[in-house]
Amino acid sequence: MSRSLTGFTGGLALVNSRNPDPESGLHASVREAAEHSSTRLDLAVLCVPAAACADALADAVAAGCRAALICAGGFGEAGEAGQAHEDAVRRVAEETGIRLLGPNTSGFFVPHRGLTASFVPGARQLPAGGVAVVAASGGINHALSFELTNAGNGVSLGVGIGAGVDVTAADVLEYLVDDPQTTAVALHLESVPDGPRLVRALRRLTEVKPVVALVVGRSDVAEFAQSHTGALATSWRTTRAAVAQAGAVVVDDERELVDALTALSRVRLRPAADPGLGIVTAQAGPGLLLADRAGADEIATPELAAETQARLSELLPPLTFQRNPVDTGRPDKSFPAVLGAVAGDDAIDSVVVYALTEPDSVDLVTALQDADLPADVPAVVALGGLDDEAAEQRIQLHKTGVPAFATPTAAANALRALVADSRRRFRTGTAAERQAPALPGGLLDEHAAKNYLAELGIRTPPRRACASREEAQRALTELGGPVAVKLLDATVLHKTDVGGVHLGVRTPDELDAALEAIHAATGATGYLVESMAPGGVDLVVGAHRDPVFGPVVLVGLGGTAAEALGDVAVRLAPVTANEAAEMPGELLGKELLRGWRGGPELNPHEFGEVVAALAAVLTSHPEVTEIEINPLRLTTDGLVALDAVVVRTEEDRNA
Amino acid sequence: MSRSLTGFTGGLALVNSRNPDPESGLHASVREAAEHSSTRLDLAVLCVPAAACADALADAVAAGCRAALICAGGFGEAGEAGQAHEDAVRRVAEETGIRLLGPNTSGFFVPHRGLTASFVPGARQLPAGGVAVVAASGGINHALSFELTNAGNGVSLGVGIGAGVDVTAADVLEYLVDDPQTTAVALHLESVPDGPRLVRALRRLTEVKPVVALVVGRSDVAEFAQSHTGALATSWRTTRAAVAQAGAVVVDDERELVDALTALSRVRLRPAADPGLGIVTAQAGPGLLLADRAGADEIATPELAAETQARLSELLPPLTFQRNPVDTGRPDKSFPAVLGAVAGDDAIDSVVVYALTEPDSVDLVTALQDADLPADVPAVVALGGLDDEAAEQRIQLHKTGVPAFATPTAAANALRALVADSRRRFRTGTAAERQAPALPGGLLDEHAAKNYLAELGIRTPPRRACASREEAQRALTELGGPVAVKLLDATVLHKTDVGGVHLGVRTPDELDAALEAIHAATGATGYLVESMAPGGVDLVVGAHRDPVFGPVVLVGLGGTAAEALGDVAVRLAPVTANEAAEMPGELLGKELLRGWRGGPELNPHEFGEVVAALAAVLTSHPEVTEIEINPLRLTTDGLVALDAVVVRTEEDRNA
Repeated sequence: MSRSLTGFTGGLALVNSRNPDPESGLHASVREAAEHSSTRLDLAVLCVPAAACADALADAVAAGCRAALICAGGFGEAGEAGQAHEDAVRRVAEETGIRLLGPNTSGFFVPHRGLTASFVPGARQLPAGGVAVVAASGGINHALSFELTNAGNGVSLGVGIGAGVDVTAADVLEYLVDDPQTTAVALHLESVPDGPRLVRALRRLTEVKPVVALVVGRSDVAEFAQSHTGALATSWRTTRAAVAQAGAVVVDDERELVDALTALSRVRLRPAADPGLGIVTAQAGPGLLLADRAGADEIATPELAAETQARLSELLPPLTFQRNPVDTGRPDKSFPAVLGAVAGDDAIDSVVVYALTEPDSVDLVTALQDADLPADVPAVVALGGLDDEAAEQRIQLHKTGVPAFATPTAAANALRALVADSRRRFRTGTAAERQAPALPGGLLDEHAAKNYLAELGIRTPPRRACASREEAQRALTELGGPVAVKLLDATVLHKTDVGGVHLGVRTPDELDAALEAIHAATGATGYLVESMAPGGVDLVVGAHRDPVFGPVVLVGLGGTAAEALGDVAVRLAPVTANEAAEMPGELLGKELLRGWRGGPELNPHEFGEVVAALAAVLTSHPEVTEIEINPLRLTTDGLVALDAVVVRTEEDRNA
Repeated sequence: MSRSLTGFTGGLALVNSRNPDPESGLHASVREAAEHSSTRLDLAVLCVPAAACADALADAVAAGCRAALICAGGFGEAGEAGQAHEDAVRRVAEETGIRLLGPNTSGFFVPHRGLTASFVPGARQLPAGGVAVVAASGGINHALSFELTNAGNGVSLGVGIGAGVDVTAADVLEYLVDDPQTTAVALHLESVPDGPRLVRALRRLTEVKPVVALVVGRSDVAEFAQSHTGALATSWRTTRAAVAQAGAVVVDDERELVDALTALSRVRLRPAADPGLGIVTAQAGPGLLLADRAGADEIATPELAAETQARLSELLPPLTFQRNPVDTGRPDKSFPAVLGAVAGDDAIDSVVVYALTEPDSVDLVTALQDADLPADVPAVVALGGLDDEAAEQRIQLHKTGVPAFATPTAAANALRALVADSRRRFRTGTAAERQAPALPGGLLDEHAAKNYLAELGIRTPPRRACASREEAQRALTELGGPVAVKLLDATVLHKTDVGGVHLGVRTPDELDAALEAIHAATGATGYLVESMAPGGVDLVVGAHRDPVFGPVVLVGLGGTAAEALGDVAVRLAPVTANEAAEMPGELLGKELLRGWRGGPELNPHEFGEVVAALAAVLTSHPEVTEIEINPLRLTTDGLVALDAVVVRTEEDRNA
């Protein structure tokens, strides 16, 4: 540690109470460190047991420190005694204003300033650069910083948050907004103490810099995670949705994160709804891998314009594929012109190039410079070869601002991130402060809930609330058959389960039988008589309050299968109709909504309006805990809400 | 090329008709090469235009060559003229017996023999080692060989098949069975000319060596693929299922392939139904990534035995998590003992270790040697750090036989492959030559089809085939209600669509109404009256003939959603009941079959028997083109076939 901090010019207290070594600047206490310091102390690095940390922190304040780092564990994650130590440390921080990183972190580093507050020897060798790492875990902070470096990047700042008693990820993200050294940010999240705060910080940061986020907790690792951070795991799905909505590019593992940042720290695509990718490959096989992966990622690889193809046919031998992918065969001196032709095509927003290292056929670094691509159509390169040769060429490409990788998969990860970033920036407008209409008082039965949906602009079937069998018969006459006949009772949430629903009722006799059956099964005397909706595809749309992030909306397909798959898309409320329109495209079963077997096709904007309206109910009315339309049926005439439930907290509902 | 072949001791004809350079051994024709050769020619490398290849190949035979390589494209992938060139080349090969690689390949290399028949300069530097690469594409052959080398492996043989006019992937796989240099095999497939042949070769090879397969074509890349190889793309799903069933480990991209082979070429787990993974980590964060990924991959990380935990508590500081994952904190001299304790636990079949490179705290190479793990409980290491330091340690680990990686994801890919390989080898027995009973003659209606299913041992509901309404009424009396009443007509495949199905019929009056309705709708006078099955979860099980692989069985969940997802599992027929029992676990919707919401639970072995029986129908009866049970209902009493269709070729059916 003492070695690690040698580049730092501020006043420093290095405290290791168990193994002090004053010769190398490691003192037994803050006071001792202060006595030996020639300058005013600025930062205290405290390697002392949990029980001694609060006092050591107070000493640091007394000695003039404005910041401190606590390495030890044994706080909130370690039961009651640990919690007491944590509370004591927090109290000192709150009362004195000293900024505290940790406890339970292996530190941080700022290579630009020669400041490396870390035990791990390699941390001192990290090159200064543009990527900041904000990690829940100290170990991940180091692992990511090393891998980013191995991939040809430098680090502006690396922080392991640890227990986050004072400084949290949100604090660091806010700091990075104005940090001139940082051009792109890696974010690693295990748990989120304050969802709205994190989202606010991310929104501000992603307005000015790309952020790539890795969220832990796809499977149930809560027990181990808690032993590590003391925090309850947040929902993986909701956290991913929240950070994506706040503008981050979300990845699945740390290699993808490195690939994404190697690209995004150097280039970005122009904002577009569906950016087009041109694939130029010197070898057909790797080009096919890139095309296959682009297809799986739903990245457009549009056929090149006739003029582009004509130009390519002058440049390339016959028989090679020239529509996109463009298979150049072994690259020769025409390679820059080929790249230029593809990048110049109107449908193309970025070009990915694959080649094996063949110094005697083409120098890719020079070729890319000679190609002189339009500034807003960046190239991404995958250069295969033995590291001895290829690594040096990749470094040269990086020096000219071209992100370079070793494999088609790495380049494909980069492209997926670039495209996600471009699409996100294309989405204009933030969620308007949409005010939902007031709700009627009392418990809402299905009729009242549907009337409210109608006020929100959501279509519901024609219906009559009937207080008697006679009214029900009149309703059948007025509506015409077939109708659905339902128990109308706001206290019964699952009407079907109690025999409260009869469908396809056509005649007065059938209606009598249905009413009698509902009465016999439930004792009810109130009925809803409603026109049957045409067939279609059932969706479920709901909004509720997440304990970490507040109001969220969920979208899924109806039916048991979709439910068993957990196939849902999530957004934070408020949400714009445009943002919500993208949710169905995230469902595994999305093909069902795209005219499956001649069925109806979803209008994403109509759908987005429904979701945005439900979201506004939760943001406008704090007493509403949940609102759900199940099913929301997609018909050839559009969306119709077939059942709806609104749940409010009891006190407010009765107020 | 001439440079590339300098290490080769055989007699060689290097022909480049366009740019001959006799000084460096590049001749304008085979004859010229023969004139300049001091030894008998053995291998001809032909870089001549497609139209000249057949003659050049004949010349090579005349000059004594027993093998040749054709680099050029412009054959079957290039229309009619190209096809004529291909036919001509094939004829020469068939008539003379010369073995031909290509056309349209960048060659092959055998580093152990100093033989590098490739244009790509880096190919000469490939180190000899144990991994063979069999790639559809010459470019991929090189790309994979380079990446395998960069990851610390050597290559025994690398082949790009190209058009595969003579030598195919199956030929090379057969050769590798007895190749003493090869310990593990990478297989890259774009299309499969002869499914059964490939499967036979793979089965033989995977009995003795691990094979890792990457199959292209997840998305629709057929057009570009065809321009490249001239072959029609095979079904991605079926090809993956086939190679997995033949014993290969299937991966999703080329980085996973390299990770898998870096592990499998060094270690294998003992065969087990569900091998247990111990996670030992020096930093909690990366350990959490490993645990999260293991959970997502359905790899067991069992809680360690009480004795193991007791031993660990002696070795490790308090407060660290010791149940599995085992969080060691910064490793010290206890590290080998920790590894030994975890590996010695009965529930553990392999140990994955994560650590950051910290030379002053622990030398992982020595620690792993000191740990002296049981031979059948191998370790996999992920060592984070800057490449300068960490790469050297990974090389040292490789030298001691321990697969080592840079990132948690790479190690997780390796573990997924090791576990897949272990599970596959645990599955004993090959598909018995199960003979399905003879089918009755003529078209099979639902009753006849179900009787046949009953002969296969598959449960069907009690039913009566009725030639009149009176018989139908008697059937209702005998079976008791509720019953399903269906049109009985073998020529009608979609009975529901024509109004031929009435469900839930309970009384003689209801039955009369149903019979009348069916008669009115279809004119039928034959009916099936069948006891209604209890509710449950519907599956679809079918067998048909794939144009590439022959008879295959498919399993999916019933309902539109499952169909829209394309959520099916595939196996080649014949299939053992044990193999088929694994199919439901591959479905995205598998939770529906595991007692979802108090529903029935699938018995995989009962299910496997049904699938194996259907598979046997196709392998026993060449005239059967298709047999399908839709739905096969999972009830609390087990599986019941609710409808069945058997399709035979017309000539055989009428024979």
